[in-house]
Amino acid sequence: MNDTTSPSVHPAWLPDAAFAPLGSRRVLVALGPDAGPVGATVVDEVRRATTAHGGSLTVADVASTADGHDLVLRVAPDGPEAGSTRLRTGGVTVVVAGDATGLLHGLHDVVRTGESAFGADHPPVVSRPGSPVRMLDHWDNIDVHPVMGQVERGYAGGSIFYADGRVRDDLSRVAAYARLLGSIGVNAVAINNVNVHRAEARLLTDGLPDVARVADVFRPHGVRTYLSVSFASPVTLGGLSTSDPADPQVQAWWAAAADRVYATIPDFGGFVVKADSEGQPGPFAYGRDHADGANLLARALRPHGGTVFWRAFVYNHEQDWRDRRTDRARAAYDHFAPLDGRFDDNVVLQVKYGPVDFQTREPISPVLAAMPRTRLAVELQVTQEYTGHQKHVCYLGPLWSQVLTFPLADDATRAVASIVAGLPSGPAGGITAVSNVGDDEFWTGHPLAQANLYAYGRLAWSPEADPVDLLDEWIGLTFPDADPRVRSTLHTLMDESWLTYEAYTAPLGVGFMVDPLRGHYGPNVDGYEYSKWGTYHFADRDGIGVDRTVATGTGFAGQYPSPWRETYEDLATCPDELLLFFHHVPYGHVLHSGKTVIQHIYDTRADAVDVVTSWVEEWAALHGLVDERLHARVAERLTEQVRSATEWRDQLRSYFSRKSGVPDATGRPIY
Amino acid sequence: MNDTTSPSVHPAWLPDAAFAPLGSRRVLVALGPDAGPVGATVVDEVRRATTAHGGSLTVADVASTADGHDLVLRVAPDGPEAGSTRLRTGGVTVVVAGDATGLLHGLHDVVRTGESAFGADHPPVVSRPGSPVRMLDHWDNIDVHPVMGQVERGYAGGSIFYADGRVRDDLSRVAAYARLLGSIGVNAVAINNVNVHRAEARLLTDGLPDVARVADVFRPHGVRTYLSVSFASPVTLGGLSTSDPADPQVQAWWAAAADRVYATIPDFGGFVVKADSEGQPGPFAYGRDHADGANLLARALRPHGGTVFWRAFVYNHEQDWRDRRTDRARAAYDHFAPLDGRFDDNVVLQVKYGPVDFQTREPISPVLAAMPRTRLAVELQVTQEYTGHQKHVCYLGPLWSQVLTFPLADDATRAVASIVAGLPSGPAGGITAVSNVGDDEFWTGHPLAQANLYAYGRLAWSPEADPVDLLDEWIGLTFPDADPRVRSTLHTLMDESWLTYEAYTAPLGVGFMVDPLRGHYGPNVDGYEYSKWGTYHFADRDGIGVDRTVATGTGFAGQYPSPWRETYEDLATCPDELLLFFHHVPYGHVLHSGKTVIQHIYDTRADAVDVVTSWVEEWAALHGLVDERLHARVAERLTEQVRSATEWRDQLRSYFSRKSGVPDATGRPIY
Repeated sequence: MNDTTSPSVHPAWLPDAAFAPLGSRRVLVALGPDAGPVGATVVDEVRRATTAHGGSLTVADVASTADGHDLVLRVAPDGPEAGSTRLRTGGVTVVVAGDATGLLHGLHDVVRTGESAFGADHPPVVSRPGSPVRMLDHWDNIDVHPVMGQVERGYAGGSIFYADGRVRDDLSRVAAYARLLGSIGVNAVAINNVNVHRAEARLLTDGLPDVARVADVFRPHGVRTYLSVSFASPVTLGGLSTSDPADPQVQAWWAAAADRVYATIPDFGGFVVKADSEGQPGPFAYGRDHADGANLLARALRPHGGTVFWRAFVYNHEQDWRDRRTDRARAAYDHFAPLDGRFDDNVVLQVKYGPVDFQTREPISPVLAAMPRTRLAVELQVTQEYTGHQKHVCYLGPLWSQVLTFPLADDATRAVASIVAGLPSGPAGGITAVSNVGDDEFWTGHPLAQANLYAYGRLAWSPEADPVDLLDEWIGLTFPDADPRVRSTLHTLMDESWLTYEAYTAPLGVGFMVDPLRGHYGPNVDGYEYSKWGTYHFADRDGIGVDRTVATGTGFAGQYPSPWRETYEDLATCPDELLLFFHHVPYGHVLHSGKTVIQHIYDTRADAVDVVTSWVEEWAALHGLVDERLHARVAERLTEQVRSATEWRDQLRSYFSRKSGVPDATGRPIY
Repeated sequence: MNDTTSPSVHPAWLPDAAFAPLGSRRVLVALGPDAGPVGATVVDEVRRATTAHGGSLTVADVASTADGHDLVLRVAPDGPEAGSTRLRTGGVTVVVAGDATGLLHGLHDVVRTGESAFGADHPPVVSRPGSPVRMLDHWDNIDVHPVMGQVERGYAGGSIFYADGRVRDDLSRVAAYARLLGSIGVNAVAINNVNVHRAEARLLTDGLPDVARVADVFRPHGVRTYLSVSFASPVTLGGLSTSDPADPQVQAWWAAAADRVYATIPDFGGFVVKADSEGQPGPFAYGRDHADGANLLARALRPHGGTVFWRAFVYNHEQDWRDRRTDRARAAYDHFAPLDGRFDDNVVLQVKYGPVDFQTREPISPVLAAMPRTRLAVELQVTQEYTGHQKHVCYLGPLWSQVLTFPLADDATRAVASIVAGLPSGPAGGITAVSNVGDDEFWTGHPLAQANLYAYGRLAWSPEADPVDLLDEWIGLTFPDADPRVRSTLHTLMDESWLTYEAYTAPLGVGFMVDPLRGHYGPNVDGYEYSKWGTYHFADRDGIGVDRTVATGTGFAGQYPSPWRETYEDLATCPDELLLFFHHVPYGHVLHSGKTVIQHIYDTRADAVDVVTSWVEEWAALHGLVDERLHARVAERLTEQVRSATEWRDQLRSYFSRKSGVPDATGRPIY
């Protein structure tokens, strides 16, 4: 048993026990001049750890000597900016960073490394952020939305920022969250929903003092605060008759708005904007394009160093299901690729990783390869909208790793992470994601979903990291000193949980099949089939899938650079897991795996439920080895996961049996 | 143009102009002793009419002579109880009723009959109610329900009874409604939702003064007030530890509750109860049956002359869709038929007309033939839950007429209306229905849906009436003095509107296929297919329908008396319109109509949309001939009906084409 769970808030991956290796050492912290609030956090962390574990803390301006210390943490001009080096020499571990924020990361690198950070001498280990921006977006509402609730797509209780229609007086949960984010290198947080409703719009004006309070809480952890804003603000807040980007009054309104923000919060990050998307206002109303719209805000922020994150999630959400030529997957590319080069350099275009919408499996968005002159951010979804609502175990590290390392551009030599980081040369954007936390005792509803938040931050910092190693790291921090069976069982449950989730839900990349009634939770094969949302599978008695080829389909495959356009276009080379995203095939089509499509659907769904079912017993065996409340919460969620996965299995197997008429070769029950 | 529409509340079928024939006469009203508030209403109606139209009113205790009068309305011991006779003799129209309520109905009979009531002498026309109870249930909530809203299954705005969490201070809308109901013979109203939530439960206790105010408004129109109550009231309101019918404390609690109600409202009607149904509490929790439960309440009401309306809508609403043996259609019979003879004589068992749930087409509930020793009421649904949400024109008179005249029992000689009226001998129950009114300007959202309220009351009084005649009557009253084209167009739109609605929605009696996301509005073929609600169509690539035969299916057909059990059991005799309710057949099965099932599905859906589309132009041609606001409202709804019907057409045609692979012989487009 670890001792880290309080009945109020779980410490996640920062329990006191995780600080034992560092906290039992003699530590010298040398911050140099101007260390600011982040430097103070470094000192606080070391003090807290050494107090708990019997070590000692010395604070100096400069580290003139390492004598008498086991660990030296110092800021020095020769350290990496925003990063750190760690080396072991002469029995002393030395961490050097170019600034206080780098030092905070270096400190947590020592915590993560644990005892081995104090092992044999080794050459410098350099840790630099893989992306300049590592952001989390909160889809939190101030007023509880009648349909979407307090946190849109939130599965972990209410908002940590808002309660009772305003920013909370007590921001201690935000402070604990900021500490968690700082420890994994997240450096930007947008604190309100991209769907900006009435009350939330006013954060930009009347609400600024409250935003400043939140920013004050994030700042000491190296995290800058952003707001989602409404493109219609000049009208709705400013009383103007237009929000036209070309209108001088509109430009002046935004400039004045930005001036007020920075007068209150000098290190404010900038704006996140969802415009002309799913009903949100945008520049189209005035005959302007997205570059006009984004640049309008960018020019208001420019004098203050702020950035606009402009979302590329633009498509026709009033599509006629009868229309098979319109393809939602094409939309972001069709809208944005022609605008490459038109965006100001303090605009980052925020692109969902797939062309549709955060599905369990999608190809990588071709927009990421199509805009070399634009700062791009890839957007991930930590909150489990389509991956089980934090009721299902679904460790998403492997999905994100696949996205970030995918060799999308330049003849398949340049990974997504490099593109968004502007490497080797080019405009740099970043990595962003929708957060999965709420005011739940365990932060994330499902305690194991904490691993997704952790892995997100770590992958944003180190996109090349192995997600299973990161999971191991998370387990070590979250369950320090736990029985080895804990680690082993967690790997069993989590390593392949994403693939397991995929195996019982929508098959072979076709996506959706989720229930519109339950906010995308649980199966409903035709749930979006005759709808306006552009997400269809076109299953009939003969076959299934969406023909997105250039030759006979919507042409989406042609939006990719070579070799991907050829790979996806050709049935012979299209990977099985994306087959139905790109092709409509008969149920008897034989996969590279050797199975027919229909038998694959039958088998994988049944096998996956067997896997999930086995987890219940595996987890039950940990009773007494992990915190009681955490154990109970996970057990409760696993029961629901088995129920839900069984429903997925039976509905999909029955649906496709009824439609195809093909019997399951294994003879397992179909209803 | 008629002059009857105010911008606030439409007069429905009681515009002043409809009273011209009566109001221009010299009228003698002789109420006899003890005419009470209903007698006063008769006098008020005549005064209002004669004032408007130049006639005269004389009020006397007894009508000693008809001299000098054109119309004599009198209460006399020889008149029919609760009914009236009307005859024309010596140039005078004489209406005689056994009591004031009968006289009110006789008065409105004269209004409906119009000038011809003053035509040539004729023998007495006797009007007696076809059923002792003619009730409307309001599914109104006091507190706005987060999912169901203020009026559950309401499509006409908010409640006329409640606003801002309490009974309205201003009950003038209720008074106008009471007048409408009194004019068509409705004599009972339950004023709150059968799903009794927290606030509504308290109407039985703290809310009684408010209920009394409502009862005061209904009373002068011959309408008694009822409450829906929660079976759990002894626990939730009384603080007892049980609601067990066998517990003396529980019995005492209900007795005391009834005493309080009658001390406040001496003519209170009684209770409506939904127990052990869709999550409502009931006697099952205590190992008791529905007779035990109903009799508990009946014994509390007995000393005061009150009645319990106990709903037979009991089924497993947590059914596993995989389970094909459980059949929701069987449930009411299985639960209640064995209890025949066990209910006290002030219990009325309230049975939905079909075995499932107010579908556009269902067979008649076999429960109505199975309980000869029980007072039965047949329950209809005026509110258009499954028939187009008062956005679609769907005149339900023909459906209800078919239900009430259906020769269900005693070797097909005894109609449903006779069964529930206890004719020729037997316990008498009545007819009840869910109201379709709200605080909408036109009462019913769709102005033409007023005809459903009208026809319901008239059919409850005269079950043998021709529903097209009643529609004609309604048109004459609602649009007095209108251009003949108005009457003609309304018949075109409405006479067969129910069959038209059926023709574009779920085919051949299979039911549902409605959208769970939109409260049963619009198509979703599989919307309830893999759900817990027990409403399935079992369509696969080969065929569709539910096998409810005795031979190979659920056995539901065997719940009917002869000859219906044989008629429905046999594919050769089962009527087309109920085919898929009773049988699972291949798509190529040939109907009595000569078409295959699949071609029937294709054709009727396409043809029906053509019909609805033609209505738009028909209605447009009435512009200037009916009230402008009413015209605009109907036009707006017709546009939506065409859109929605088109969606039904295209989804169903596409769904069954994709599934069956059978081409549409007409070559019309399929998507």
